[in-house]
Formats: sequence, C-alpha cells, structure tokens
Amino acid sequence: MQRIPILQIGKLLLVTIQVDLMDQTALALQDDLANKIQRSGATGVLIDISALEMVDSFIGRMLASISGIASVLGASSVVVGMQPAVAITLVELGLSLDGVRTALNVDRGMALLRQATEGQSDDNESDGQ
Amino acid sequence: MQRIPILQIGKLLLVTIQVDLMDQTALALQDDLANKIQRSGATGVLIDISALEMVDSFIGRMLASISGIASVLGASSVVVGMQPAVAITLVELGLSLDGVRTALNVDRGMALLRQATEGQSDDNESDGQ
Repeated sequence: MQRIPILQIGKLLLVTIQVDLMDQTALALQDDLANKIQRSGATGVLIDISALEMVDSFIGRMLASISGIASVLGASSVVVGMQPAVAITLVELGLSLDGVRTALNVDRGMALLRQATEGQSDDNESDGQ
Repeated sequence: MQRIPILQIGKLLLVTIQVDLMDQTALALQDDLANKIQRSGATGVLIDISALEMVDSFIGRMLASISGIASVLGASSVVVGMQPAVAITLVELGLSLDGVRTALNVDRGMALLRQATEGQSDDNESDGQ
C-alpha cells in the first residue's frame, strides 16, 4: 500500500496528495498525521491538492476528517493548491468542504496558519506525553 | 501521465516524489521544474524522496540531471528525506549520486540552501565525513 509522506517544515506539516486516495491510503494518512502531530508538536498542517484533478465527496470527507483530527490535536489546517476546475466542480456539485479552510497556494496557506497560531492564546504548549 | 507537483515556499521550490518515476514523468518533471525556476526566480530546490523505497541508477541520474538544470538556472538543490535502507543500498551498489547534495530532512535541507544562497560566491560545504 502506498503511504503519503508527511514533511515537517519548522512547526508545520506538509502533506502533498498526488495519488488517488483509496480507503486504505486515506486511513493510513489520518493515522500517520495524527501520530506526527503528536510527536512533532506541530501547530499547523498544510494539505496540498494541486495534483488532484478531481475532488469527490469521498476526498471532501477525508479532508474534513483530517482537519477535524488536526484541530482536536491543537493544530490548524489549510487545504492549498486547489485547481480552478476543481473549485468550479465543487461548487457546481454543491460540495462545500465544511470545516475545511482553503488558500490559493502554500505561501498563502502558511501565512494563514501563522495568523491562526498568533491569534491563539500564546502559551498553550501541550506537553505531549 | 502523472505530473509531479512543484510547490513554492518563499524563494524555494519543493518537489515530493511519491510515484514510480517513468521516463515520461521524469522528463516532464525536469521541464516543469526548469520553467518554474525561471518564472519564480527561485534560489533553491528541495527534492523530497522520503516516499521512495528504492533509488536505482535511473533515479540517481534523474536527480543528478535535475540538480544540473537547477544549477545552470542559478538555483541550488538538495535531495532530502532519503530512507536509511536506501542510503545503505546506494553505498552497497556503489552509486554515489555525483553532484547531488543531500540532507536528512526538509528543515536541514532548507538550512543548507539558505547557507548556499548567503555564501553564493564561495561554493564550499563542510561535509566532514
């Protein structure tokens, strides 16, 4: 089974989704990401979907679920790099990506995450076990 | 044909290789990367191979060729995230990845690229071994 790598850039994690997400891969990604957030103490997660030419309801749910998991573990998340055609299709299909924040590209996503982190009460470093 | 996305992070470009590189994909990547360096004025390229469980002579040549192209266009490049088993196999096979700089992970690769950019004129890295 293909595993999607999770890169750490400072206090941020970056996930680039390039392959078609099957159930197994998606579950493994959620698992890996939760572990990595916990181990690294990351404050933000960037999910790059610029390689995806289609986002269906399964991927939509998966993105929402990843955002939810990150949020519970104290990390903000942003989906970046959505192709224009994907955005159009999402709106046409009425898929709203509830609870998922988006940004145009990685740079803007990072800026958004920095804002989100600064906006939090400054000293909530959870001592990961 | 699968295209490998190239992410821009400030003045750096990040390429995460997750799929098996066929000739076509590798050529397209070189092409895309050269264009992106030219358009973005990037000073550094990070190539993440943490998802690769094997690096053969074809991938080795491809990495060297990408480094060469980036260098000609004025950008430094670093290969990051090599798995320990891959490193062992490379050495056992006598594949030396000539002309390719490596770093343990994205953070260290970024530090290396920042150094390279700051000390542009002198090309000396202290890789004590």
